[in-house]
Amino acid sequence: MYTLLKKEKNSGARRGRLETDHGMIETPFFMPVGTNASVKCLTFEDLKEVKAQIELSNTYHLFLRPGMEIIKAAGGLHGFTGWDRPILTDSGGYQVFSLARLRKISDEGVMFRSHIDGDSHFFTPEKVVDIERILGSDMIMPLDECAPYPCDYAQAEKSVERTTLWAQRSKEHFLKTEKDANKQYLFGIIQGATYQDLRLRSAKEIMRIGFDGYAIGGVSVGEPVVEMFKTLDWLMPVLPEDRPRYFMGIGLPDQIVKAVGQGMDMFDTCLPTRFGRHGTAFTDEGRIIVLNAQYARDFGPLDPACQCVVCKNYTRSYIRHLAKLKEITGLRLITYHNVHYYVNLMQRIRTAIETDCYQGFQKEFLVRYNSDLA
Amino acid sequence: MYTLLKKEKNSGARRGRLETDHGMIETPFFMPVGTNASVKCLTFEDLKEVKAQIELSNTYHLFLRPGMEIIKAAGGLHGFTGWDRPILTDSGGYQVFSLARLRKISDEGVMFRSHIDGDSHFFTPEKVVDIERILGSDMIMPLDECAPYPCDYAQAEKSVERTTLWAQRSKEHFLKTEKDANKQYLFGIIQGATYQDLRLRSAKEIMRIGFDGYAIGGVSVGEPVVEMFKTLDWLMPVLPEDRPRYFMGIGLPDQIVKAVGQGMDMFDTCLPTRFGRHGTAFTDEGRIIVLNAQYARDFGPLDPACQCVVCKNYTRSYIRHLAKLKEITGLRLITYHNVHYYVNLMQRIRTAIETDCYQGFQKEFLVRYNSDLA
Repeated sequence: MYTLLKKEKNSGARRGRLETDHGMIETPFFMPVGTNASVKCLTFEDLKEVKAQIELSNTYHLFLRPGMEIIKAAGGLHGFTGWDRPILTDSGGYQVFSLARLRKISDEGVMFRSHIDGDSHFFTPEKVVDIERILGSDMIMPLDECAPYPCDYAQAEKSVERTTLWAQRSKEHFLKTEKDANKQYLFGIIQGATYQDLRLRSAKEIMRIGFDGYAIGGVSVGEPVVEMFKTLDWLMPVLPEDRPRYFMGIGLPDQIVKAVGQGMDMFDTCLPTRFGRHGTAFTDEGRIIVLNAQYARDFGPLDPACQCVVCKNYTRSYIRHLAKLKEITGLRLITYHNVHYYVNLMQRIRTAIETDCYQGFQKEFLVRYNSDLA
Repeated sequence: MYTLLKKEKNSGARRGRLETDHGMIETPFFMPVGTNASVKCLTFEDLKEVKAQIELSNTYHLFLRPGMEIIKAAGGLHGFTGWDRPILTDSGGYQVFSLARLRKISDEGVMFRSHIDGDSHFFTPEKVVDIERILGSDMIMPLDECAPYPCDYAQAEKSVERTTLWAQRSKEHFLKTEKDANKQYLFGIIQGATYQDLRLRSAKEIMRIGFDGYAIGGVSVGEPVVEMFKTLDWLMPVLPEDRPRYFMGIGLPDQIVKAVGQGMDMFDTCLPTRFGRHGTAFTDEGRIIVLNAQYARDFGPLDPACQCVVCKNYTRSYIRHLAKLKEITGLRLITYHNVHYYVNLMQRIRTAIETDCYQGFQKEFLVRYNSDLA
């Protein structure tokens, strides 16, 4: 599945390739988040235009709406949406913990009430694999228990143990079930909160079970950014080189740049779409809050360094006008630029790795971005 | 400005061409409505993709937000929006009468309070021409008084008289003011509510002043559709053949088809975008309410007869899922199809006229559409 093409000379950054039945993915890469099987404000034509290689969708949301029967009848997520490139689906676990009401967790699984209509549902590791088999995504995540922040040692330890137990059951069920259509890859998720020994224990246990790729979960849950990167310091030395590494739910551009430098390959976050809908654009110089009065007569592009169709054809003044009026088109233009920015940033990252310039690229980027990580 | 290319043999339909500084427009044609200088949910790239020849914008809204200073600094609407094709702007009169608060009308002009912040403004015929000079639209409408429905004879007569007075002043001011950039055409608007003699009197007076094109206003304001078409019966014989004819704010697809058959050239309506945002798609067979449960597992396109990118790439089931969740992308997909449908309908209309098949086209269309006008 994963081919390591190159390790950059002066950093931990790696250039690789992921093979899926829906096409090759160049790594490191970013996954736009399509919670309800649609990246908010954008079409799949837009995603192709900005050269997105893959889309991520949320199992929890799709399970509730439109529900598995419709997606099954459509032939899975690819058939349902028409998107013919790779898809990764999460396990729904994170949403059960962050969105659902009245959840009740046991070693068997997690009972929760839908945040939409209050209906009761029960997710087990096996059920989640079954759901993701129907979704037909190219990469699937198993049910895990994501520890919150802050989290005491005992709770973190329990979540590591349960995550291992569920990972084992997910793997067994995954091997027993066969998808007739496309090949699916199963990832393992490493938990352990902010405790070094628990992170290492979780990694060891998950790697012993063995997965197609490894994800670091339970990060970006409110902990200080420095804690998040400590986790990478601990885990990088132990993760196998021949598997892709997924830093779940990360992050801001400077965080991605830094994490790539430490050896991570895969990223997802709803920030570019969420910020876009709220009138904020990403650039190398930091964020542009388009609604600010200073842009009322600014007839330059959102991001002068950007070559996307929005930056080529529209001005800050016009986009601000639309965004102020909550015109959908305005939110759409900013979102488009933001997703293009993220996808294009990954292309620049890959080029820097290929030319053994990553250390300089990272340093320059973090300084220009005015990042605390510089 | 207008060239009559052909009169169809068996109907009143005509094929023509409008020349503007932003390009040639083939008539009859449809103008998507971009109230706030943006066709709701769509970008100008979308408008080009669906082959829209022109966009209409609303003077009243743009005058209030973003205001004339910003648009002037941007070099007019074309500079502000980046749209490089023709633009028609209305006079704002209709919005003053339908949206604004506390309006006070006199022969001098109309005082109104903004529906947004309650600020007082005063529109005169001269001021509206000045505003549209700054907007820089290719075709501009003068301030008129749009009579409501129902409307008694005395009130309708008064609105005809005032519309003529204002048309005269608009023309004089138009001739005195010169736009440095592109050539602008001034239209005359015919009022008269549902009274034959008033309609004919208004037409005579407006034509005596002389304009680049003639618009029928005060239609589609709540009157029975049959009244609307009576107005066409009365006016068609008197309107000059060498000027474009604009049926303001019309209409549903079957109404446009019928009006073309009577000799109208120009149409605008917010129906395709408004219906799109509310989950309803236009087709030759009538309207599809995508939210209806019957489409939950319908994996066919919105409109099987349509070649637009939405109908080629997305299913009713998927679009329904998005629209139910109020996902912007869903509303956008339906809106895109609807505007494509309208623009494409005009292309089919032009082809039918060119091949002297309009009578048959109209008959077949109205029957298939299950129209009361059949």
